Amino acid sequence: MSDVEQRLAALERRVEELEDERAVARLVASYGPLVDSGSAEAVAGLWRQDGSYDVDELLMTGHEEIAAMVRSANHRRWIDSGCAHLVGPPHVTVTGNEAVAVCHSLMVIHTGGRFRIRRATANHWRLRKDTGGWRITTRTNRVLDGRPESSELLAAGIGHGDTP
Amino acid sequence: MSDVEQRLAALERRVEELEDERAVARLVASYGPLVDSGSAEAVAGLWRQDGSYDVDELLMTGHEEIAAMVRSANHRRWIDSGCAHLVGPPHVTVTGNEAVAVCHSLMVIHTGGRFRIRRATANHWRLRKDTGGWRITTRTNRVLDGRPESSELLAAGIGHGDTP
Amino acid sequence: MSDVEQRLAALERRVEELEDERAVARLVASYGPLVDSGSAEAVAGLWRQDGSYDVDELLMTGHEEIAAMVRSANHRRWIDSGCAHLVGPPHVTVTGNEAVAVCHSLMVIHTGGRFRIRRATANHWRLRKDTGGWRITTRTNRVLDGRPESSELLAAGIGHGDTP
Repeated sequence: MSDVEQRLAALERRVEELEDERAVARLVASYGPLVDSGSAEAVAGLWRQDGSYDVDELLMTGHEEIAAMVRSANHRRWIDSGCAHLVGPPHVTVTGNEAVAVCHSLMVIHTGGRFRIRRATANHWRLRKDTGGWRITTRTNRVLDGRPESSELLAAGIGHGDTP
Repeated sequence: MSDVEQRLAALERRVEELEDERAVARLVASYGPLVDSGSAEAVAGLWRQDGSYDVDELLMTGHEEIAAMVRSANHRRWIDSGCAHLVGPPHVTVTGNEAVAVCHSLMVIHTGGRFRIRRATANHWRLRKDTGGWRITTRTNRVLDGRPESSELLAAGIGHGDTP
Repeated sequence: MSDVEQRLAALERRVEELEDERAVARLVASYGPLVDSGSAEAVAGLWRQDGSYDVDELLMTGHEEIAAMVRSANHRRWIDSGCAHLVGPPHVTVTGNEAVAVCHSLMVIHTGGRFRIRRATANHWRLRKDTGGWRITTRTNRVLDGRPESSELLAAGIGHGDTP
């Protein structure tokens, strides 16, 4: 293999790695705007068809259950009174066609003419790449109210603890 | 065209795409630190000379009006009592020399010895690249207090709704 | 030098620049999840062995002092009652083997069954790259309560003010 060939192959690998991390971060960054605009199909489409979204006591599996949450009367009420799901910058680890991302999120609500934080949450995302690009396989959210599993989830997402 | 030529050209395109998204995200990330430090010229310089910043009822057009907002007595009071404009990670879409970015922002103020969220806002940025690099053409911010235009702005920024 | 050689060398430089910024942003994004999970050694390991962390009145120097802060009874109490250190997207400037990053952070705590912002902070990071990768040399945090040094720190991080 020539020197030029080796350098091209190395560059192609490095650029693909950057593109993979960028694609995962971009997907994570789309969640908040989509969910706060009630874009139910688009939110669900961030997951694989068999993907799951596990939020404390509520487990949603598959596109229909995720879209139903976005369309629910409860969720509509948050949007109609004012709501911001601010998702922090994720720490992304790509390994081949799989990725783990971890970040915090804040659910900020508008209530009584003021804004306040309703929930601060640990977010752990598992994603997979196939021909359709990156999609979420499982996303696990736990409220940061002192329960040990929330901080364990943060450690696991960085690779310093058991995986969920 | 040789195989080497093709691979070089493909890499150059992919790297430019990554650089463009990085440049837009970096510009967005500079807004908060610049506005919270009262760096009026530097804030204005993020926009094109004829760029506009449309925040709910206030429309600023051109560098002078934007810099005047940063220098205003009102804005100085926020800085002097303590203020953080936290701008979330943007979702960036580059198309040639144009880009759209969308994100949430929180304006956190220090008042009565405590911090609270004064505003949670939908941010929609349009940017253009020319020989001077990326600059904002229009930035539209709407408070997330339940008004429909705010959540429409979020959807439009991801490409799931009418453009503003 | 041939045209192919020049284009390869240019691409290698550009990709390394993107990788450097990515590495710095990724390190910054790991701080919150690590500190909120009490991962004391991993938090300390983000710094160089002789690195320092200067937070308002507390100056920590070296891995042991930083790890001791994470292990302290005070910090454990924050985790055990619920705590989110949300670190915003950093603006990163790489110059050779040195980098400066600047961002806001929010310390959100769970208290009395509610979440509130305990501190909004200006963050200024200096980092250095050696054979072990990027590590923090000094991180300076100042609460955004109106003290002039906090907003000066934000301006300095973007390159619009005196360096700390």
